[in-house]
Amino acid sequence: MTEILQQHRVHGGTLSFCRHDSVATRTAMRYSFFQPPGTGPFPLLVWLSGLTCTEENFTTKAAAYEAAARLGLAIVAPDTSPRGDGVANDAAYDLGQGASFYVDATQAPWAEHFQMERYVTRDLLSAVEAQFPVDPTRRGISGHSMGGHGALTLALRHPQLFRSVSAFSPIVSPTRCPWGEKALAAYLGDAREAWQAHDATRLIESGAAAGHYDAILVDQGLADQFLAAQLQPELLEAACAAVGQKLTLRRQAGYDHSYYFITTFINDHLTWHAARLSR
Amino acid sequence: MTEILQQHRVHGGTLSFCRHDSVATRTAMRYSFFQPPGTGPFPLLVWLSGLTCTEENFTTKAAAYEAAARLGLAIVAPDTSPRGDGVANDAAYDLGQGASFYVDATQAPWAEHFQMERYVTRDLLSAVEAQFPVDPTRRGISGHSMGGHGALTLALRHPQLFRSVSAFSPIVSPTRCPWGEKALAAYLGDAREAWQAHDATRLIESGAAAGHYDAILVDQGLADQFLAAQLQPELLEAACAAVGQKLTLRRQAGYDHSYYFITTFINDHLTWHAARLSR
Repeated sequence: MTEILQQHRVHGGTLSFCRHDSVATRTAMRYSFFQPPGTGPFPLLVWLSGLTCTEENFTTKAAAYEAAARLGLAIVAPDTSPRGDGVANDAAYDLGQGASFYVDATQAPWAEHFQMERYVTRDLLSAVEAQFPVDPTRRGISGHSMGGHGALTLALRHPQLFRSVSAFSPIVSPTRCPWGEKALAAYLGDAREAWQAHDATRLIESGAAAGHYDAILVDQGLADQFLAAQLQPELLEAACAAVGQKLTLRRQAGYDHSYYFITTFINDHLTWHAARLSR
Repeated sequence: MTEILQQHRVHGGTLSFCRHDSVATRTAMRYSFFQPPGTGPFPLLVWLSGLTCTEENFTTKAAAYEAAARLGLAIVAPDTSPRGDGVANDAAYDLGQGASFYVDATQAPWAEHFQMERYVTRDLLSAVEAQFPVDPTRRGISGHSMGGHGALTLALRHPQLFRSVSAFSPIVSPTRCPWGEKALAAYLGDAREAWQAHDATRLIESGAAAGHYDAILVDQGLADQFLAAQLQPELLEAACAAVGQKLTLRRQAGYDHSYYFITTFINDHLTWHAARLSR
């Protein structure tokens, strides 16, 4: 059951900060939910945030709700990991709390609570659908950086759940970058074979969700400090080209990795999802 | 001289986080500055934030830059007070650092650094005009809560500096509410006569800037928790009616005191200022 902690009117809709108990993570989890004006049922966009974020970063900084209200799109933004004193953590910003990588961990000490794929695809969707007037047949998914990786991989691994997918500055191949290698080794173990199924480029190459998404939208800033070492959009471009998956990859000159980049192009993403979720 | 600490591209313009030395406050001060696309010179909107804020709150949460880019409006958002170890402070959130009320303090220990009226109207404007392509003959001012008080009082006390003024949820009469009485007593002393010149309703009643502003725009949320005890827009309404100052006071049902309120209506305010600053 969802507990509503705070509500705010914004752009004629209602923004709720919520808490609920997750079976998957065995913790309380938090999310924000924007309900547009009207009675619904509304199509739902799932937004997954990046490293260090909570459910608040997108909510306060992305400026998504004017367009979401206009388009009649609900948006849920979960926290990026389980949290709390009893939950494993690491001093580094890129492992543990705030850095789940949206996988179900198999390794100690992470496996007990870090079950974020099951959390997002089961508990979160169930909680939102039980509490708010959203249409379970019309869902899209998007996210930023680690959350862009989450959006791409969950969309490819669970095509029955989503109709549309996009990402900002995603980690497109965590098996081939320092952030991803560190996290996947910790959560899934040293055997790299287990990592492939959580790498968007490998999933596409293997034919996951082939033919399901008419296109994938990705925006990438060219002044992004993580572009060459961590993000590598050219790997996604090559994987999509190899299998004939249409990809709209937009390289945006001058933009960095921050929410100032996201806020500049979020309306394009919402319009992209709304077009695919309103049919 | 302004030091640029950080820059981000946003909505085709450039957002700069800046630091400079202020003669008035005898401290370093910080501000954010948004420059729209193009070459300028641009009209300038000064945004004053509320209690506890820094130069970042408006910058990250208001979602002002899409409209500002479209309208060709530059925006400067200063910090709300001098700060630092050598600067007087108070444990309460509504006095001292983060709570300047935009006055020039006359009382110890505040007078040494809390000279925020001189800071905003002299040092800040000079710094921005020396660094960026803004037109010193086309300035507007706006703000939220304590910053709405700042915008109204500085506009009324310095009409030669500004052509347009608006506010969100302003403290319209600090001489008649707990926040204002506490701050003005601390900064200006117990003699209430000295407070009157920093009370927007009293300034209007006394004919300050009479005939200068064609109208004043104020938005106020009706679900604002501070509405009755601190904000009291009806006092501004009565003062304007008494002297024939046109006021567009919009009472917005369901909206609270947060940035979710500001972001919902900021475009209306930017359009209001741009219309008066582009002529």
